[in-house]
Amino acid sequence: MKIRIVLLVLGVLLLVESIFMLFSAIIAIIYGENDILALSLSAGFTAIAGSLLYLLNKNVPRQVGKKEAYLIVTLGWIFLSFFGTIPYIFNGYIPSFTNAFFETISGFTTTGASILNNIEELPHGILFWRSITQWMGGMGIIVLSIAVLPLIKVGGMQLFAAEVPGPTKDKIHPKIKETAKRLWLIYFVLTIVETILLKLGGMNWFDAVCHSLTTMSTGGYSTKQASIAYFTSPYIHYTISFFMLIAGTNFILIYFISKGKLRKVWQNDEFLYYLKIIILSVIIISISLIVWMNIPTELAIRNSVFQVISILTTTGFCTTDYLLWQPAGLWVILLLLMFVGGMAGSTAGGIKIVRIQLLLRNSYSEFKRLLHPNAIIPVRYNKKSINSNIINNIQAFVILYLFIFFISSLIMSMMGLDFSSAVGAVAASLGNIGPGIGSVGPIENYAHIPIAGKWFLSFLMLLGRLELFTVLMIVAPGFWKN
Amino acid sequence: MKIRIVLLVLGVLLLVESIFMLFSAIIAIIYGENDILALSLSAGFTAIAGSLLYLLNKNVPRQVGKKEAYLIVTLGWIFLSFFGTIPYIFNGYIPSFTNAFFETISGFTTTGASILNNIEELPHGILFWRSITQWMGGMGIIVLSIAVLPLIKVGGMQLFAAEVPGPTKDKIHPKIKETAKRLWLIYFVLTIVETILLKLGGMNWFDAVCHSLTTMSTGGYSTKQASIAYFTSPYIHYTISFFMLIAGTNFILIYFISKGKLRKVWQNDEFLYYLKIIILSVIIISISLIVWMNIPTELAIRNSVFQVISILTTTGFCTTDYLLWQPAGLWVILLLLMFVGGMAGSTAGGIKIVRIQLLLRNSYSEFKRLLHPNAIIPVRYNKKSINSNIINNIQAFVILYLFIFFISSLIMSMMGLDFSSAVGAVAASLGNIGPGIGSVGPIENYAHIPIAGKWFLSFLMLLGRLELFTVLMIVAPGFWKN
Repeated sequence: MKIRIVLLVLGVLLLVESIFMLFSAIIAIIYGENDILALSLSAGFTAIAGSLLYLLNKNVPRQVGKKEAYLIVTLGWIFLSFFGTIPYIFNGYIPSFTNAFFETISGFTTTGASILNNIEELPHGILFWRSITQWMGGMGIIVLSIAVLPLIKVGGMQLFAAEVPGPTKDKIHPKIKETAKRLWLIYFVLTIVETILLKLGGMNWFDAVCHSLTTMSTGGYSTKQASIAYFTSPYIHYTISFFMLIAGTNFILIYFISKGKLRKVWQNDEFLYYLKIIILSVIIISISLIVWMNIPTELAIRNSVFQVISILTTTGFCTTDYLLWQPAGLWVILLLLMFVGGMAGSTAGGIKIVRIQLLLRNSYSEFKRLLHPNAIIPVRYNKKSINSNIINNIQAFVILYLFIFFISSLIMSMMGLDFSSAVGAVAASLGNIGPGIGSVGPIENYAHIPIAGKWFLSFLMLLGRLELFTVLMIVAPGFWKN
Repeated sequence: MKIRIVLLVLGVLLLVESIFMLFSAIIAIIYGENDILALSLSAGFTAIAGSLLYLLNKNVPRQVGKKEAYLIVTLGWIFLSFFGTIPYIFNGYIPSFTNAFFETISGFTTTGASILNNIEELPHGILFWRSITQWMGGMGIIVLSIAVLPLIKVGGMQLFAAEVPGPTKDKIHPKIKETAKRLWLIYFVLTIVETILLKLGGMNWFDAVCHSLTTMSTGGYSTKQASIAYFTSPYIHYTISFFMLIAGTNFILIYFISKGKLRKVWQNDEFLYYLKIIILSVIIISISLIVWMNIPTELAIRNSVFQVISILTTTGFCTTDYLLWQPAGLWVILLLLMFVGGMAGSTAGGIKIVRIQLLLRNSYSEFKRLLHPNAIIPVRYNKKSINSNIINNIQAFVILYLFIFFISSLIMSMMGLDFSSAVGAVAASLGNIGPGIGSVGPIENYAHIPIAGKWFLSFLMLLGRLELFTVLMIVAPGFWKN
């Protein structure tokens, strides 16, 4: 283990973080509120820590192996979250360190679970910092899921490793650089476009920017306690729905769209499945809302489109309290969608559509194999046969995911949460959604969870965000051996 | 598809069923109650139907292929359940056909979920019939899981196919006969021994027989509305716990024990894991009961031993209302155990321990594979490497099981059950346990479930009992093609 190269990269990450803190300080200056000092001192402190890590290790060879990559990724998220608490703790915007850490890691993991009861009272600089943590997390995830994880064989994207735009696929370093540049440009442009469209829809610039930052990262932090329900304009609801849909799409597909290769999109099995899941869920929910609750047709369709996309893409914005939907139990559809998540290679969390799809296809193939034991019946995807090692890796992932979900639900239950709330909090944290069901539902928050529970859920957010293996690898047998 | 050999076997099954109805009629005669006519006419009617099926098809070639085997197994359980409703419907012991079918298939699948609110008011013959359906179901499962399913590559037992005592492993017919004879003898002897031990503990003969029939089959029907809580004797609780433990054990292991080969038992990975799960759960629960609820030590240990074994082996007997256990959420441990189930090759339902164990080992191996991508890292079991096809089959099974669980919970929620009850009813039906959580908890029953829900849960019991694939195969693509 070459620990010094790890520290070097962590130093760079902290320097980047301090730049974003500085942006937030500028927002604070523009609004002239009492968070100027908090944000500029945080930026300074983080910059000093980052510089120290960088300077002390700048002479090490710039080679990152597999084990170092695992460690950088996991520690990167943890370091960013620890330093990211400083702006909240200064001046006591969030007085408890546990709550501040929960809010920050929920930001960097693009979860969006909040402990805040007073969002609108916070100064603009702090709210901007809260939104930018999610946007930074989204940037991290794009690089991670498309450029880093496939090379260390984790995540659903190894399927597409050959398709990733970039010069080589053997060396991590040049690949990351090139791929990151192209995809960040898309991410950045989409954020700008959404901001302008939201502004045109009547939001002020500040809200438009913050909501765009947290839409494109499928984060879901809002500057309003009532989330998107605060904004009554149907145009805003549809615009955000559309950008959540985009944010839950594989960024390589968006890259192809930007190159005009639309054919790639319509031939992509995962994308078609993504649309099918949304359409099917929206049909069931909107018809139920119209028939059972007599909700006007447009409103019923709008709310179901918004909530289905918001939950499936693991964003977590809300326009309505879906727990009150009739018939009772309709929200269980949303709970199931929390497990599915968006497409691999997007900023969304959850199990990911490609995995669900391949496993269902494999179960289906298993029937054929039972009937014809001597035939070789492969699982096909995008017209290619999928190697059984990949199927095995995906199965191991999903089983581990559900195993962690079950055990964690038990742990949260034993901390005193009622059954729905325990299940909801775990599903929403592990899947990086944010709002869950029960006492952590769409109009509630996570403030009431016991301290140990908050730390445990923070761990689940990290675990889910980094595709389980990346985090667990560090404690796996043999990791620390040479 | 050779449908006539299927009908022939179904005819034989109905003839066997009519014999057990006749036994029940004899019990009715002994007690001189008003169910004599109901049971003897049911026996006659079922015998006529069985004979017709037998005689009309007795000249067909006695060759059963794979597809015929799937059909016989699934239709066998359905036919037995349909004819098994007749004793209940006569005289209106259970007036509704839906309820009667639910109670019968819950018996034959050894689930033990009941719609009865008045168990003690029923005549002895009917109660005996109710118990014997579970015992017959247990007999069926022993043959099925050890002799039939491994040959058609379904179920966890294909791992042990080579170890199954019996002359050959290529031809279904002679193998079934030999294996069935040996294992049924064990099943029968154990039932007798338990009956005698329960009688010695103070039960009357009738209750001792009925409870032994439903213990050895891990069925869980009791002749008392309060289940085993009716009997206050600690001796009875421990005796039943012990026999539930045995009933959840692979019958091939019990066969080895009967031959004095104890070494086989202590070298069996699944059996050791089975014991470990029980011991760990009992420790957590009994300490919690002692510390939080101030329950006397012996009682706390007894209740936790009883409930852990009862749920894990999917029997479903109750000595206490585990939903009231403190700290709140302690029962979630039991909910998790509902998914695990007993050992493969026992009469227990659920996913089965060997599958859970292999999947956890495979997930663990996956970490090593990620660190050493070029090394071949097999999953080991009983000191042998497990073929990746078997791992793949098991993974497909578990994912299908959980997928069915999630979708079914949604369906039951939308039928109006609250979340806990929906989850509990589905877990308890699919896993063949009986009592669940929420409104189908240990002191409740299934009477209040809507009609459509009862049919759906009946289907889940069948699906779970026959290891999913056996039932779903019949509607799989290509099954009905030649």
